[in-house]
Amino acid sequence: MAFAEFRPLDEKSLVEYIKAEPSLSSKLGDNLDGLTIQEVGDGNLNFVYIVIGSSGSFVIKQALPYIRCIGESWPMTKERAYFEAVALKEHGRWCPDNVPEVYHFDRTMSLICMRYLEPPHIILRKGLIAGVEYPLLAEHISGYMARTLFHTSLLYRSTTEHKSAVAEFCGNVELCRLTEQVVFSDPYKVSQYNRWTSPYLDDDAEAVRNDNALKVEIAELKSKFIERTQALIHGDLHTGSIMVTQESTQVIDPEFAFYGPMGFDVGAFLGNLILAYFAQDGHADGVNDRQKYKEWILRTLEDTWNLFHQKFIALWDKHKDGSGEAYLPAIYNNPALQHLVQKKFFEDLFHDTLGFGAAKMIRRIVGVAHVEDFESITDAAKRASCERRALELAKLLLKERRKFQDISGVVSAVRQIQ
Amino acid sequence: MAFAEFRPLDEKSLVEYIKAEPSLSSKLGDNLDGLTIQEVGDGNLNFVYIVIGSSGSFVIKQALPYIRCIGESWPMTKERAYFEAVALKEHGRWCPDNVPEVYHFDRTMSLICMRYLEPPHIILRKGLIAGVEYPLLAEHISGYMARTLFHTSLLYRSTTEHKSAVAEFCGNVELCRLTEQVVFSDPYKVSQYNRWTSPYLDDDAEAVRNDNALKVEIAELKSKFIERTQALIHGDLHTGSIMVTQESTQVIDPEFAFYGPMGFDVGAFLGNLILAYFAQDGHADGVNDRQKYKEWILRTLEDTWNLFHQKFIALWDKHKDGSGEAYLPAIYNNPALQHLVQKKFFEDLFHDTLGFGAAKMIRRIVGVAHVEDFESITDAAKRASCERRALELAKLLLKERRKFQDISGVVSAVRQIQ
Repeated sequence: MAFAEFRPLDEKSLVEYIKAEPSLSSKLGDNLDGLTIQEVGDGNLNFVYIVIGSSGSFVIKQALPYIRCIGESWPMTKERAYFEAVALKEHGRWCPDNVPEVYHFDRTMSLICMRYLEPPHIILRKGLIAGVEYPLLAEHISGYMARTLFHTSLLYRSTTEHKSAVAEFCGNVELCRLTEQVVFSDPYKVSQYNRWTSPYLDDDAEAVRNDNALKVEIAELKSKFIERTQALIHGDLHTGSIMVTQESTQVIDPEFAFYGPMGFDVGAFLGNLILAYFAQDGHADGVNDRQKYKEWILRTLEDTWNLFHQKFIALWDKHKDGSGEAYLPAIYNNPALQHLVQKKFFEDLFHDTLGFGAAKMIRRIVGVAHVEDFESITDAAKRASCERRALELAKLLLKERRKFQDISGVVSAVRQIQ
Repeated sequence: MAFAEFRPLDEKSLVEYIKAEPSLSSKLGDNLDGLTIQEVGDGNLNFVYIVIGSSGSFVIKQALPYIRCIGESWPMTKERAYFEAVALKEHGRWCPDNVPEVYHFDRTMSLICMRYLEPPHIILRKGLIAGVEYPLLAEHISGYMARTLFHTSLLYRSTTEHKSAVAEFCGNVELCRLTEQVVFSDPYKVSQYNRWTSPYLDDDAEAVRNDNALKVEIAELKSKFIERTQALIHGDLHTGSIMVTQESTQVIDPEFAFYGPMGFDVGAFLGNLILAYFAQDGHADGVNDRQKYKEWILRTLEDTWNLFHQKFIALWDKHKDGSGEAYLPAIYNNPALQHLVQKKFFEDLFHDTLGFGAAKMIRRIVGVAHVEDFESITDAAKRASCERRALELAKLLLKERRKFQDISGVVSAVRQIQ
């Protein structure tokens, strides 16, 4: 271990750290002359350094014992780096093409060294704001979700493996509590951290706080979030946790990972795509009215769900006689029955996905953390109008999710809000 | 620690053990002359010794590393004694009147020393077979279930406390797997352990194995059993895990305890009451046609659920501004909303209860472990007829549980099977 005690790294001590860790310096060809080091953490929780040497590169991510954007007033265990590292490795095992490789983990320093996602990789959210199409996005992200969620669930695992992994991730409770607060609680009550595009959305935010039907639904989802240990979920799978190029899709930042409901991940992604969709009118200008791009987003939404469904079922079929203990082959041994249980499983997962996706949308409009998709619309009135439409759709999805049969029904609902 | 290594106790080594444990010998007034020791384990998993001295008494329960009734061919971790001791203490904390006090626990020896439930305490199941009414049973058991389930759930606890307790009980996985196998799997497939009243129920057992709709439902319940960490449940709350007198109701044997769905406990109790009901015709004779007793059982069934509902809601209302993190007071702060979320919570719990209760009934008729209620009916044709009616009701409950609105509807369904 390079350093015996935790200390937040600066550029100088980072170099000392690399020197003292043979596995890291060897990644740079043991040549630390002319290193480029750049701090790029635009998140809320960590330092992120890009380290580039003459013959190699990596990223160093260090968790700090508080939420960075708010400061030391909001403490947050740095042990989350441990869970992030375990999740990166576990998800990477099942989906190496879409998860950056972990080179080194130091629990004392809460530090992960991993593959540097070189340019032109950018955060997907920024690409969506810029109106860039990613033709492989749906294909990649659906594969990532299908593989990681399937293989860490009881469809693939024995109860023994499952309970042992569940127990370990119970330790990531502080991050789970943060999600509980910012997604399932704060938007539905008066909170010092909430904000919204005021005064335009004052009535809308108040309406959320006074909507009994909405609060009944959010309570059910919150319980499911805490109590249902369905799979090792990423826990924060929005479009800011994904880096993309035209050919590559990489999922990063699983520090919120734990055993939770699959629909929380799928919903996070789809919900953030819908936010991106509703933000487009705010980014339209004389040169580009964004109409074509909006269609691409809706197609991506639809393709992502349908491909996810397809790939997940294909994994299930492939492993139906395997080690998973949820549906024993001796019981679910005929095609008609297999089809029935898969249909029921996916109906439930679809409704979970819509509910969690809607919850993630709502919190981005009236909760503490907003999204750049809307924030970058400088005209507040225009921004509020985009946000209001997203909020209306989210409330509909949350309350009426059980009435939706398939993703094309969701796409229609999105269009109808226009 | 009295003994440095695990060894199964016999009557002789038991006395040595007591001598070496001051806390035990002092319970007997430090006088071990003229001890009465009786081995009474009629369960499948353990030795149970009743120890009575001139000035005190207790029970010693020791877990063996296999399932006793089947022999060493079915190994079973003796660590279950640890989880039983923790559950007895936790449940006893919330419901001391209905849980025997733990005097001493020895993890190495897998040994629990606890209060001796002196005569006329008998196993409730035996009382039900004998046709004895217990006027306080519904009152007591509803209180036990309401208090233990409420206080170990997120309605009372913080997420932090909850996840830590969940993680610990993930260790009781072998017992959970046993339940998975004997309740949710074996009855629905060909298994060497299954048995039924043959040849009378051969077609019925086969029909269970071929019932796709039933298998779809049992899969959903099995997933919920494994994945939903709702509360610290007893895990085996049938009428053989309860000792009673006219004034006292004591819940014993929580070695299957873990964080699971509340409905599994409530359903186990109600399901076993229904089994007792359907067994009565087999116990009827010229002196007693058992018609009055059957009415008492149905009344107890109905009272238990209604009182459980009442008491649980009363605890919820009492603690609604407390430490529980599921429904924060700042959000669920008006009586109409409070009523709405409670109604929804209990609808779900009711349907879970019926599903799990039905699953517990089915496994007692076509699975490995049967109930004395039926086994004590010596006329096989008569026994099969009682069992068949119970099985028909259970299949109806499992498949149609969502259509039942309240417990009186269940009672009507029970009557209609007659």
